[in-house]
Amino acid sequence: MDTQDFLFILLAILFTARVLAELAARAGAPPVIGELAAGILLGPSVFGWLSPGETLRALAEIGIILLLFQVGLETDVRRLARAGLHSAGLALAGFGLPMLFGFVVMYWGFGAPALVAVFVGGTLTATSIGITVRVLADLGRQQTPEGQIVLGAAVLDDVLGVVLLALLYEFSAAGGVSLANGAKVLLFVGAFFVLAPIVAKLMSGVVHRMESQTQIPGLIPTVMVSLVLFFAWLAHVMGAPELLGGFAAGLALSRRFFLPFGIALRTDPRFSERIEAQMQPIIQLFTPIFFVVVGLSLNLRAVDWAKPEIWLLSVSLLSVAVAGKVLGAMVLPLPARMRWLVGTAMVPRGEVGLIFAEIGIQTGVLDDLLYASLIIVIALTTLVPPFLMKWMIRRQPTVADLSP
Amino acid sequence: MDTQDFLFILLAILFTARVLAELAARAGAPPVIGELAAGILLGPSVFGWLSPGETLRALAEIGIILLLFQVGLETDVRRLARAGLHSAGLALAGFGLPMLFGFVVMYWGFGAPALVAVFVGGTLTATSIGITVRVLADLGRQQTPEGQIVLGAAVLDDVLGVVLLALLYEFSAAGGVSLANGAKVLLFVGAFFVLAPIVAKLMSGVVHRMESQTQIPGLIPTVMVSLVLFFAWLAHVMGAPELLGGFAAGLALSRRFFLPFGIALRTDPRFSERIEAQMQPIIQLFTPIFFVVVGLSLNLRAVDWAKPEIWLLSVSLLSVAVAGKVLGAMVLPLPARMRWLVGTAMVPRGEVGLIFAEIGIQTGVLDDLLYASLIIVIALTTLVPPFLMKWMIRRQPTVADLSP
Repeated sequence: MDTQDFLFILLAILFTARVLAELAARAGAPPVIGELAAGILLGPSVFGWLSPGETLRALAEIGIILLLFQVGLETDVRRLARAGLHSAGLALAGFGLPMLFGFVVMYWGFGAPALVAVFVGGTLTATSIGITVRVLADLGRQQTPEGQIVLGAAVLDDVLGVVLLALLYEFSAAGGVSLANGAKVLLFVGAFFVLAPIVAKLMSGVVHRMESQTQIPGLIPTVMVSLVLFFAWLAHVMGAPELLGGFAAGLALSRRFFLPFGIALRTDPRFSERIEAQMQPIIQLFTPIFFVVVGLSLNLRAVDWAKPEIWLLSVSLLSVAVAGKVLGAMVLPLPARMRWLVGTAMVPRGEVGLIFAEIGIQTGVLDDLLYASLIIVIALTTLVPPFLMKWMIRRQPTVADLSP
Repeated sequence: MDTQDFLFILLAILFTARVLAELAARAGAPPVIGELAAGILLGPSVFGWLSPGETLRALAEIGIILLLFQVGLETDVRRLARAGLHSAGLALAGFGLPMLFGFVVMYWGFGAPALVAVFVGGTLTATSIGITVRVLADLGRQQTPEGQIVLGAAVLDDVLGVVLLALLYEFSAAGGVSLANGAKVLLFVGAFFVLAPIVAKLMSGVVHRMESQTQIPGLIPTVMVSLVLFFAWLAHVMGAPELLGGFAAGLALSRRFFLPFGIALRTDPRFSERIEAQMQPIIQLFTPIFFVVVGLSLNLRAVDWAKPEIWLLSVSLLSVAVAGKVLGAMVLPLPARMRWLVGTAMVPRGEVGLIFAEIGIQTGVLDDLLYASLIIVIALTTLVPPFLMKWMIRRQPTVADLSP
């Protein structure tokens, strides 16, 4: 790929994403749908002009990491901790139920081998943290109690997803499961999540001091992006998803962050404001690239729409995928309407489901029929819930609306 | 290359560049030297950890285009036009003299074939607009009369360089020169430079109107970067260097832009300020990547330092390279000290020289010995002038210092 071609591709992505996001907003749909649609349009599903190459995937990854950094920046750790138990319950139920249902449907319903049934179940466990968080932010619901429960559950789901993927990968490659490995990954991820914000906090103190001394402009953009990339890389080394590194760095720099044992390491509020003001344009530039690349990765032409088996499989898996996530929300001690909102927010599979499906077809565990059905399930669970959530919020006032 | 690897490479580049730029500033050297040094350290010259791949080159290209966009934003068109004749003279002399001297030295001095002599001369004509502009900005001399003369000359030099490269490329590939082609390129580039700012100005009016209507945040970063990329792509299509597209877009949006025939298309100053405030962090993030990639591309290990012929060749070409640029400045109607400053500012060859040398070795016109000598010349002309310029400015007050 030539550099000139790449400039043009980037132009096409940024421009189409913006135009479709504006159209979506005017039509009353969530803007993120416009960005996903841009990817579907430009990608193999419709026009086939673009396919997500190495460079685009790298920029998209930076986009999602920076988005999670921003989510972290805006998160109140106390409130997140208060939501913790509910989040954990929601994450475990939203992880366990689709896995179980998916396995049962495939193994007993369709007579698939156990490994295949486990893989399909695994694909259904994913929650797309990117899409969930973006829709909540678009609707202004990120800071509400239900928003914090969903955020916490989505973060935990991502960790569980990575552990499962590691196990499945080993399972399908070596034919044996090592639970010790899974436990090791969980331990490392836990250690990362306890230590990373503390380290990030200390490092931001160094950046703050550097800022008062430097004579060269541009400290915050380069050093803060470096910091975020460092924690993303550290997360990867510890076996966690990279985007959680961005989240941890954001948490540490948020104005509402506190260290355990009451250690006072306050961030100067003006410093926080400068960080937010200068990181904002960078985040806004990279984030749409991520959602467009999700759309590009979703090849709807890979589906042979004429086969009746596809419809049977898709409808079965779709019911399982939705029921598994929504049922988990029903046990939460929230008003019924909020339970539905939380349950719906957990449904999008997005990029996480695509990664599972892709590994499944690459290792030969999934055949074309199953892969196509999963693509349908991922597309529908990704594209429909944003509309439902918007409709629910508009119809029904939430706690936040009653007590602003 | 994995996405994780890329995140780590980007981290290494941003972090090393910043640290070395800070060290350079503290040691009294221009910060850009620190960024070039970061590339030389990380690249094949010293540690060999990184080589500039497709993705890095693309990001570097965005960096230089955005830097030129910023230069355009800060340029006063009237002042640039006033410098026009001097710039044109300087550009033609700084283009023609190194070409002529280079040819004479190679053809008669070293007995090289005519094609080789032309190619070496061509490599010596380049002026690195990126390094020149960055050093002037670092020294706060961009808005001075001599700064505007250098800027105009660097822009013209880039156009002349592209025309020459197109001709040389054809010459070395087909064995025949088509002057008609060169004229066509010049015509297109001229048309681009007259029309692009007008079109960009009209488009920015559309963006301004969109901004007052949109409900989704992030308009300026995505749409302005799209606009800049569009003009970079347009420049390429018209046969001009991409970075001039960035410059034209910046010119059109600058607060001091006026259209020919007195057409009033004023930019709302608050809109200009928002553009500058939001583009600044993005530009500051991408620009260092460009200078690091220039350093990465400079393989000092490709030089066999023990061969005496290399020294003879390098010293000859270096004298020619410096004399050709500095002599051009001597005819300017400026005080002597400013002539020296302007002449020195034109010396860096940087990335433009590297592109020539790379094409030369790829097409087989240059042998290893000549290539190595040119690398030495490019390295010295790129790394030494920033120090000289800083020293000159510190020792001698310029017009700007006398009338602030």
